[in-house]
Amino acid sequence: MSDVEANRPVGMALIGSGRMGAYHGLTLAQRLPGARLVAIADPAPDAAEKLAATLGADSAYTDAAEAFADPAVDAVVIAAPARFHTDLVVAAAAAGKGVFCEKPMALTIADADRAIDAARAAGVVLQVGFNRRFAPDWAAARALLDDGTLGTPRLVRSVTRDPGGFDPSRVPPNTIFNETLIHDFDALRFLNPGAEAVEVYATADALVEPDWKDRGLLDTAVVIVKFDNGAVGVAEACFEAAYGYDVRGEVFGSGGMATMGDGRRTGMTFSGPNGRAVETTRSDQELLGSAYVGELAAFVEAVRSGSPASVGGEDARAALAIALTSAESMRVGGPVRIAEVGK
Amino acid sequence: MSDVEANRPVGMALIGSGRMGAYHGLTLAQRLPGARLVAIADPAPDAAEKLAATLGADSAYTDAAEAFADPAVDAVVIAAPARFHTDLVVAAAAAGKGVFCEKPMALTIADADRAIDAARAAGVVLQVGFNRRFAPDWAAARALLDDGTLGTPRLVRSVTRDPGGFDPSRVPPNTIFNETLIHDFDALRFLNPGAEAVEVYATADALVEPDWKDRGLLDTAVVIVKFDNGAVGVAEACFEAAYGYDVRGEVFGSGGMATMGDGRRTGMTFSGPNGRAVETTRSDQELLGSAYVGELAAFVEAVRSGSPASVGGEDARAALAIALTSAESMRVGGPVRIAEVGK
Amino acid sequence: MSDVEANRPVGMALIGSGRMGAYHGLTLAQRLPGARLVAIADPAPDAAEKLAATLGADSAYTDAAEAFADPAVDAVVIAAPARFHTDLVVAAAAAGKGVFCEKPMALTIADADRAIDAARAAGVVLQVGFNRRFAPDWAAARALLDDGTLGTPRLVRSVTRDPGGFDPSRVPPNTIFNETLIHDFDALRFLNPGAEAVEVYATADALVEPDWKDRGLLDTAVVIVKFDNGAVGVAEACFEAAYGYDVRGEVFGSGGMATMGDGRRTGMTFSGPNGRAVETTRSDQELLGSAYVGELAAFVEAVRSGSPASVGGEDARAALAIALTSAESMRVGGPVRIAEVGK
Amino acid sequence: MSDVEANRPVGMALIGSGRMGAYHGLTLAQRLPGARLVAIADPAPDAAEKLAATLGADSAYTDAAEAFADPAVDAVVIAAPARFHTDLVVAAAAAGKGVFCEKPMALTIADADRAIDAARAAGVVLQVGFNRRFAPDWAAARALLDDGTLGTPRLVRSVTRDPGGFDPSRVPPNTIFNETLIHDFDALRFLNPGAEAVEVYATADALVEPDWKDRGLLDTAVVIVKFDNGAVGVAEACFEAAYGYDVRGEVFGSGGMATMGDGRRTGMTFSGPNGRAVETTRSDQELLGSAYVGELAAFVEAVRSGSPASVGGEDARAALAIALTSAESMRVGGPVRIAEVGK
Repeated sequence: MSDVEANRPVGMALIGSGRMGAYHGLTLAQRLPGARLVAIADPAPDAAEKLAATLGADSAYTDAAEAFADPAVDAVVIAAPARFHTDLVVAAAAAGKGVFCEKPMALTIADADRAIDAARAAGVVLQVGFNRRFAPDWAAARALLDDGTLGTPRLVRSVTRDPGGFDPSRVPPNTIFNETLIHDFDALRFLNPGAEAVEVYATADALVEPDWKDRGLLDTAVVIVKFDNGAVGVAEACFEAAYGYDVRGEVFGSGGMATMGDGRRTGMTFSGPNGRAVETTRSDQELLGSAYVGELAAFVEAVRSGSPASVGGEDARAALAIALTSAESMRVGGPVRIAEVGK
Repeated sequence: MSDVEANRPVGMALIGSGRMGAYHGLTLAQRLPGARLVAIADPAPDAAEKLAATLGADSAYTDAAEAFADPAVDAVVIAAPARFHTDLVVAAAAAGKGVFCEKPMALTIADADRAIDAARAAGVVLQVGFNRRFAPDWAAARALLDDGTLGTPRLVRSVTRDPGGFDPSRVPPNTIFNETLIHDFDALRFLNPGAEAVEVYATADALVEPDWKDRGLLDTAVVIVKFDNGAVGVAEACFEAAYGYDVRGEVFGSGGMATMGDGRRTGMTFSGPNGRAVETTRSDQELLGSAYVGELAAFVEAVRSGSPASVGGEDARAALAIALTSAESMRVGGPVRIAEVGK
Repeated sequence: MSDVEANRPVGMALIGSGRMGAYHGLTLAQRLPGARLVAIADPAPDAAEKLAATLGADSAYTDAAEAFADPAVDAVVIAAPARFHTDLVVAAAAAGKGVFCEKPMALTIADADRAIDAARAAGVVLQVGFNRRFAPDWAAARALLDDGTLGTPRLVRSVTRDPGGFDPSRVPPNTIFNETLIHDFDALRFLNPGAEAVEVYATADALVEPDWKDRGLLDTAVVIVKFDNGAVGVAEACFEAAYGYDVRGEVFGSGGMATMGDGRRTGMTFSGPNGRAVETTRSDQELLGSAYVGELAAFVEAVRSGSPASVGGEDARAALAIALTSAESMRVGGPVRIAEVGK
Repeated sequence: MSDVEANRPVGMALIGSGRMGAYHGLTLAQRLPGARLVAIADPAPDAAEKLAATLGADSAYTDAAEAFADPAVDAVVIAAPARFHTDLVVAAAAAGKGVFCEKPMALTIADADRAIDAARAAGVVLQVGFNRRFAPDWAAARALLDDGTLGTPRLVRSVTRDPGGFDPSRVPPNTIFNETLIHDFDALRFLNPGAEAVEVYATADALVEPDWKDRGLLDTAVVIVKFDNGAVGVAEACFEAAYGYDVRGEVFGSGGMATMGDGRRTGMTFSGPNGRAVETTRSDQELLGSAYVGELAAFVEAVRSGSPASVGGEDARAALAIALTSAESMRVGGPVRIAEVGK
């Protein structure tokens, strides 16, 4: 089932033209031959217009509703601030558009369910932006899980460290769980296929900006996620790494271990007076560029073919439940069962 | 100076629709937003037609001359068999088209000069397909040469090993020099900027297919290239590597050493009962995909802007001179000065 | 202050001739020129005698007390089963011998204090077998902490995975905490110098031998250790890794990250039909051989010079407190403050 | 057949107490339980005396003949300047002592034959100091050759780069061939077992100290060695590498490739503001320490058991023939057959 004829590019609207929106826009305009960027919406005056001119999009709107009403639009990519995500998903779905939504799709379980229900009711594709599933190392590790090589997972690790430079005054509470570690929570699930998280223990602190601790900042965190198959996941994040952007994973099973994420910019190595050196990646777009393109390529293909997204609303809900339980674990100072929060 | 207005995609014709031609065609059609694949020419019945249908090119020709005469064509990518390259370059240049020519651009110095002269006379861009210059590792090493970090080169190494499976009956004499090692000869020059090769000593044999040795097959070779700044280059090739496609480089200078080419498919590592394993790349298109796209992107940009190619006809001539001198070195059984051959 | 004249080898007695005892015995007899293995004690009939004959030790005893009374013995290496460690330390110290005790030095805080007090009262050196401090990678990372390069630690990780083949019927309760992870607890402390652990959360299961779970087996564990400087430690262990013996560490601080433990047997890499492969280490003695020798070399030197051990009884007590708190955390199902257990 | 009873340490004399002699002396005194350093000989006043005092050797001589006459000496390690090696080997053999001789064992083929003949006539073990055969990476690669995994060698590479700081006024002619590359020539042979070198082409220059070129200095060299099984060896050396001491190898055969020599000091990796860094080895004794100990351990064992050395006089002769042919190749400016020089 698809609305898009075989040889026509899928018409795409971009909702939100910020840092990540601009990157997705460039992908839709220039990196995905099967897609055509037809519209951009952003409430900021001129923002959509400027980006549309740069990328060659036909239409620029200040109201996302106009994009949803645009008949040239087959599907939308939502890259607005997180708090608007759910309403945008629901509206886009109601308009019959396929929806790709940046993480987090929702900030409450109720909203997650609302988004899932809207997409289901409308019969549209709903995909969320869990990029690691499309990063080559992670996909290769998953293949070793799927073909049985790695055996049954016992210990799974996922790490995200940002390159720093954040403004602590602009970090909402629990951002480290809801917006950063949510990637790692999904990665843990991806690397322990078929299992579900049952209990969470979180510890977090303001170690990068300790002066902001009493205002509730959490910039460094470790979260233990226990799964129903006995496997234990460790998700770890920090908002500042001196060496750049660091995303790694490890899955250790009865058959062996896979490690992911070497963080190198290139395969070039320099040996000089100070020893041997390799350049490290400095931003998410540098490290995960192919994953960002890959996830939109998969989405465009799902929209065209009418097949379900490989990572959908239920995955977003499951990762959110871990994130919310992490915050609850911080509140109570001990482990919390997912079922108490993510019901 | 450019014939292409700022916002119009550069119209491209592909000459030759074989393995490499098809890859370049896909790049022009789908991986380079600034280019538009408008025509494909191939003398084999239906070959151009079929590929044009797949890639959405407007026109398919059996005669390259028709592509050169097509007013929608701004520039051409020549991926025909090597023996036709020079005539195609000359004809395309005469028609005022920018020319990207797969290596080798020519098989004699006279032909190389003929191609260079034709492009110069016509005032068109002429670029050759020396892909390593566009591979990230090599570009990063060159940056360390350009900024002085590596100091003065002393020893330079370039290695090409193909994954095997070739048909020895279809390998023309000196193919290992003219078609394989010519990449390494260019890489040595790229990693020793400003210097020129002065003497060559080659040794080669049929070690993969020894039964073909008496019919002149050379499938394994090492070539020593002495440069006018004293640096020594070692170029090494073999038509069969059990582990796939292996392209590596090393430049050792007074300031240190850069090594290039880790040959990994992804950064994923598997540790299992047999130890630790990484997947290796299995084909040139897998290993050098980004370089193949990068060289065409640079070409399209040069055509658009009218600026000279970063790797042009003179570079093709210089690498060819080393290749021809290698064959002469084999003939005489000792070192041969470039000036005796490549004059 | 030392009992050993400058040029005389330090006379050593080995207490316990099992797997690890035999290794230490060989080190004392053949790998440490400054030491001389003069006596071996083991209650098993003939065990000491046989090993003494192999290693050329002068005396063999079935009662450790005889070794402690032997005037040729300057110091002892205790490698008996864990439950005898404290009494042996106390007796050896009372006899005025320097004491090297394999981990764990004690199984209760009271015993740890008893051992520390005995050594202090006797004025003898007391060192415990925390081998990672003497492994080159770990020592190099610690140097980067000591010179400030790594800045303030934020996240510290220590992993131990044994190669498997254990008999679940012979694993006492909490072995994974008291005998395996105690190494990691010390490693976390070593990599967060000056800080002390304040709270522990442990999760563990029988994932290798699930049939033994109801008999209390824990073969896989993750322990979170919170330190008083805000840093979070993650210690992780499993009794079976398909790829051999795996000991790794990671310390991430404000200045960067150090990783330790590449687990390679040699630097040789083989690229073949299945990709690229390196051999992994298969046993603790293979992986940590130089650390096992290094810790005894440091002990012998401390005995000779009369200087305190670099890793002493207080370190053993601190790691034990984390181990005991881990078991308590398992019991209560939540985080436990060290002070409640290790008082 | 052996002169040494089973349980007595082999009595060793060290001839030469310079940098390498002192290292071997320390190994004999303290790192090899099966050996006992009983005598040191060095013509420099006090040199032997001082080292003997430090290492606890019984006797110190200024004349090597005294060591050869010492009945406590079972075997000798010759670490005198290269020009004395042959006469010392002959004299030691004549005295019935087992002989370990640092490379080069001789500087002419006639001398090599004289040394071989002397050892054979005396029925003593003769081993030469080709250390790479005892380095773990090289031994592991050789194992893959011996078990057939690597198949038939096609291309073999051996690299030696010293850390620099040499005094060009004290470098005899052809040192780079006779004293440095002779290691690589042996390594090529070791990695192409059963084959023999047939032709050599050498190119060399003074690139580190160009002012000394007209006085005959060669500080950078590449030598091509053709073997009778068709395999081509590339040996490469330079007297100065900005990053320390670099010894590497590569053997590429029909079954795959082995690479050796990662040049890391430890497995610790630091990721910081400038990227990722590992420390490189800075001296031969640091990089090859275990090989230096391993070669003497093998020698001591051969002396004890009366079995032949694993790397003997014939190996020294074969490597010397390549070195001498390299110098001849430089003189004639082209390839030279080994048979013309090394007859």
